[in-house]
Amino acid sequence: MQILCAPFHIFCKQKLFDMSEEKKYPLLQGIDSPADLRRLSEEQLPQLCAELRDFIIESLANNPGHFASSLGSVELTVALHYVYATPEDKIVWDVGHQAYGHKILTGRRDRFGTNRKFGGLKPFPSPDESEYDSFVAGHASNSISAALGLDVAARLQQHDRHVIAVIGDGSMSGGLAYEGLNNVSSSPNNLLIILNDNNMSIDKSVGGMSKLLISMHSSKLYNKVRFKIARALTKIGLLDKERANSLTRFNNGLKRLLFGQRNNIFEGMSARYFGPIDGHDVRELVRMLNLIKDMHGPKLLHIHTVKGKGYEPAEKNATVWHQPGIFDIETGERIVSTGGTPRFQDVFGETLLELAKLNPNVVGITPAMPSGCSMNILAREMPERFFDVGIAEGHAVTFSAGLARGGAMPFCNIYSSFMQRGYDNLIHDAALQHVNMVLCLDRAGIVGEDGPTHHGVFDLAYLYPVPDITIASPYDECELRRLMYTAQLPDKGTFVIRYPRGCGSLTDWRCPLEAVEVGKARCISPGDDVAMLTLGPIGKMMAPLVDKAKEHGISVAHYDMRFLKPLDKRLLDEVGKRFKYIITVEDGALMGGLGSAVTSYMAERRYSPIIKCIGIPDKFIEHGTTAELYSLCGMDAGSVLDAILAFNKEQF
Amino acid sequence: MQILCAPFHIFCKQKLFDMSEEKKYPLLQGIDSPADLRRLSEEQLPQLCAELRDFIIESLANNPGHFASSLGSVELTVALHYVYATPEDKIVWDVGHQAYGHKILTGRRDRFGTNRKFGGLKPFPSPDESEYDSFVAGHASNSISAALGLDVAARLQQHDRHVIAVIGDGSMSGGLAYEGLNNVSSSPNNLLIILNDNNMSIDKSVGGMSKLLISMHSSKLYNKVRFKIARALTKIGLLDKERANSLTRFNNGLKRLLFGQRNNIFEGMSARYFGPIDGHDVRELVRMLNLIKDMHGPKLLHIHTVKGKGYEPAEKNATVWHQPGIFDIETGERIVSTGGTPRFQDVFGETLLELAKLNPNVVGITPAMPSGCSMNILAREMPERFFDVGIAEGHAVTFSAGLARGGAMPFCNIYSSFMQRGYDNLIHDAALQHVNMVLCLDRAGIVGEDGPTHHGVFDLAYLYPVPDITIASPYDECELRRLMYTAQLPDKGTFVIRYPRGCGSLTDWRCPLEAVEVGKARCISPGDDVAMLTLGPIGKMMAPLVDKAKEHGISVAHYDMRFLKPLDKRLLDEVGKRFKYIITVEDGALMGGLGSAVTSYMAERRYSPIIKCIGIPDKFIEHGTTAELYSLCGMDAGSVLDAILAFNKEQF
Repeated sequence: MQILCAPFHIFCKQKLFDMSEEKKYPLLQGIDSPADLRRLSEEQLPQLCAELRDFIIESLANNPGHFASSLGSVELTVALHYVYATPEDKIVWDVGHQAYGHKILTGRRDRFGTNRKFGGLKPFPSPDESEYDSFVAGHASNSISAALGLDVAARLQQHDRHVIAVIGDGSMSGGLAYEGLNNVSSSPNNLLIILNDNNMSIDKSVGGMSKLLISMHSSKLYNKVRFKIARALTKIGLLDKERANSLTRFNNGLKRLLFGQRNNIFEGMSARYFGPIDGHDVRELVRMLNLIKDMHGPKLLHIHTVKGKGYEPAEKNATVWHQPGIFDIETGERIVSTGGTPRFQDVFGETLLELAKLNPNVVGITPAMPSGCSMNILAREMPERFFDVGIAEGHAVTFSAGLARGGAMPFCNIYSSFMQRGYDNLIHDAALQHVNMVLCLDRAGIVGEDGPTHHGVFDLAYLYPVPDITIASPYDECELRRLMYTAQLPDKGTFVIRYPRGCGSLTDWRCPLEAVEVGKARCISPGDDVAMLTLGPIGKMMAPLVDKAKEHGISVAHYDMRFLKPLDKRLLDEVGKRFKYIITVEDGALMGGLGSAVTSYMAERRYSPIIKCIGIPDKFIEHGTTAELYSLCGMDAGSVLDAILAFNKEQF
Repeated sequence: MQILCAPFHIFCKQKLFDMSEEKKYPLLQGIDSPADLRRLSEEQLPQLCAELRDFIIESLANNPGHFASSLGSVELTVALHYVYATPEDKIVWDVGHQAYGHKILTGRRDRFGTNRKFGGLKPFPSPDESEYDSFVAGHASNSISAALGLDVAARLQQHDRHVIAVIGDGSMSGGLAYEGLNNVSSSPNNLLIILNDNNMSIDKSVGGMSKLLISMHSSKLYNKVRFKIARALTKIGLLDKERANSLTRFNNGLKRLLFGQRNNIFEGMSARYFGPIDGHDVRELVRMLNLIKDMHGPKLLHIHTVKGKGYEPAEKNATVWHQPGIFDIETGERIVSTGGTPRFQDVFGETLLELAKLNPNVVGITPAMPSGCSMNILAREMPERFFDVGIAEGHAVTFSAGLARGGAMPFCNIYSSFMQRGYDNLIHDAALQHVNMVLCLDRAGIVGEDGPTHHGVFDLAYLYPVPDITIASPYDECELRRLMYTAQLPDKGTFVIRYPRGCGSLTDWRCPLEAVEVGKARCISPGDDVAMLTLGPIGKMMAPLVDKAKEHGISVAHYDMRFLKPLDKRLLDEVGKRFKYIITVEDGALMGGLGSAVTSYMAERRYSPIIKCIGIPDKFIEHGTTAELYSLCGMDAGSVLDAILAFNKEQF
């Protein structure tokens, strides 16, 4: 199998809309703020929705972004801004994927071509960008808690403001959403929660069988049988694997219970439940919102929508069209480059399957990212050893620790920035009882266009103080394989492997699975003047500097540290004794991490080299291509070379 | 109001049980493991329970620990070990408070007098201590996820093992428990979850009125009215404030919905629900457990228990008797020392109330610790500005960020080690949108007898890399007041104040509320040879070293850094230029935190002092008195003095 890399910095055609095409968007071109929208008649709203949808499709075909979710929320977005007095009233979007329509209607239409570009519109709602963005919306499940805060604050200050949280059913699997719900009736508020439920598409396509699966009564053998049926259906293709998994992402039984029409959570909590209604009928949405707008107390409106609504290829496969890259509108063909080097995630996915074949205890756990981390490769071949636990990072880690205590060898894969949700679980449930499990952090370091909510830049710093764990980062794809192999050997404890988004550097990456010595760095190039210590694939980006520095008469020794923890102290002793100059390079926060650890070690041992640490400075880094952001942070090869050359000019 | 300090290292009378008193514990003294228990007849079990209860009461009267929870779970503990083949079958306790009976029955009876003492039995279940402890149990809400992992691992390996999670209703408010529940039906397992529901006691004492409050139907004005009624009842004393708050901790409507007999979450998820039954009827428990033991698929057994069961004072006030210290068994009188200095938590609580009177925007948020952090002082006077959100740290932070975005000035108080659950919320929901809120971390640093799950030692290290926040720690109680005052002034952003468990150093702590300059350290004592940089109250413990070092001819300058972030760079420049020796002292992990930050700054600026960093080494620290543990970590004043004196002997 050849793995193709869909490069994540797909070049944008830069086709901006000519808004003078009045024929194409006759209503939309007149909407410069929601106030303009509110001047339309209700009869005009369906047309506006159609225009908004076309605008999103045309825009994203050229400038890639989150696609299917925003198409699903077009009517809801229009209805909300039509009924509510935004920005005085506050809409809190749960995950910004669904908020493109919101951006376009709130004064950002003409700049929408810059969406996700360096210096352009931000990838997710942000109060820094617009007064219409009430709260940051990058990580899932925070909307209820945030909106409850906004609403309670309004009550305390006698503001007569409406606050609306819009949460998708995917986000409802996160514990934070539940904690918010559990508190919704605990203090006076008028919060409206809109549950944007697009799981319906699954029911539709799976049809009667999924209903049977869900509604079957308990029997002694029921549970075993149920899973066997599901697997059988999956194998013969009647039940799509990812859909089968999604069925349990936000458990349908639980959902029905929480949001069913009778006896649901909201009624249980003396709050009001409305719906479900068709989330693509904009006039019905407007009618319903007007009806409940001024009711006191917390309310929930349940709407059904279709991800990718109005664009057939996306309706058929919402997973692929979540973030499709550029595409041809007419044919629905996605334009992905072929060839090149594999993505780290695919090397992870392929290697996990190999390891699972070698070691019967290996299992895979992902919080809702089977495609994103390529664990679907394992899922396809060994569904019984694959666990998609939904958006639930804390559970993913603790469940893995439980599996490990029970004798399994879990590989739990979590995006680095989302791992911030599982931090306590790592400390308390894994490290403290030194369970043997592997935590793979994908999307570590600068991730590019998804911006500050998604950069995985803090992990090295927050993991380093945790005792009894191993922290590694591979230099290239072969090293990733070796580290994964090493991590699942007996008694390796809690073993973290972090690697970045995007492609690696090798075309021939299927090197043999061999163990590496834990805590052992390796020398990439010997040298005499400057020691360059790197961690992870950014090290490979810096490797050519050895030759470049030589051209300037500087001999650089390049060491791939491989492990942040345990640090290779023998190597550091050697480096501390031999070198007057050290430069550390890492794709992570400078406040903590490799540079800080090396500096502390040198001080502790009383070596006194000049140390220059390269990494992410102490601020939130915006969005842009990784190349742009590396350069912004002084982490590109040119900047690092400059830092090496600057050593020569030192006066001390 | 005078604040009295209940010292947290209450001296233990060291009265160990004379187990030869066969008359007193005729059955219990024969139980050296659950195998012995299983040789008893069912008829003998009530007597064993009575003995176990007496043993716990007598033991804890002399050696303080968690009291009420363990009394409530006596019968459950006996029944579980009677029916299940532990340790092959696995019991996962959610929070170890309830597990004393479990310890006593599993071979640790004779050592129970060492419970929570340095080198003695661990405060919470730990697999390191006993094969009967299946999983670590310090932080709430992890049992379902962990037990699900254990059970799924058993299925994968074709082990025919039973796994039981025992979770209290308090822990059910944590999002992690919900994430676990949401996954319970997603893969084949035979998990038994026992919901140990002791909220009944509240219903009982509040009586009909609480039922009215809970069951009233929605009406247009209902929500406002409901809270007004609750507050009115509270004011006239009919509804106890803390109980009124507890009512919403794990929302009763939600609970009824999740665990009600009909149409509950488990039935919704095709799992089986049993109960509710009386959790103090040991024979009924045994009957029920035998009945459901071999049923396949996930099951939930709902039992009702009374916290403090069998000891009247504790039954009447479970909050106080959660961890009462030593007491007189006959009279129920708790033996607390009076006088002395106030606890930091009380200075926080009193100052918060003062600030709330000064600033109408100030509100208080606690995740289930109103007494523990003394926010009940605010709750009593201003219930409408106090929010107990239940065990839900993530929500507490995001809700606070929402309040702040809405114009309120939240003081969110979380125990340092529990804040690990709210880490992402701090980064994503607070710091990234630079909201003005205060996060007070109580129980920071070494906490003593609660051990490694509860030490708040990682906070400085994991907070330091977060951009755009302020991190402070007060030298004494007056500084705590000044920092709190400063933090709520306009536009201070996200402001963290961490302080330890236990008493401060001042009897006269009501100093005026004055602002301090953010990022400004202060000089406690001038000196010339060694700069001692300290952060937090541990600095005050070190202050006498200045004079002691002088006796050895060493002149120590002592600086209270006050802020870890922003660092006082002007001071550090001065120190870097003037001093050849620097010693840093902090009550936090050495891998990160003050020492590491100072070292990095010195290296960056090319100062080359000799730096010695004092703090918690890179391992999990066991339980014991704080004095014992400081000494263990080389953080006691004697060790620090030795480190200062050692500078003199340096050869370099």
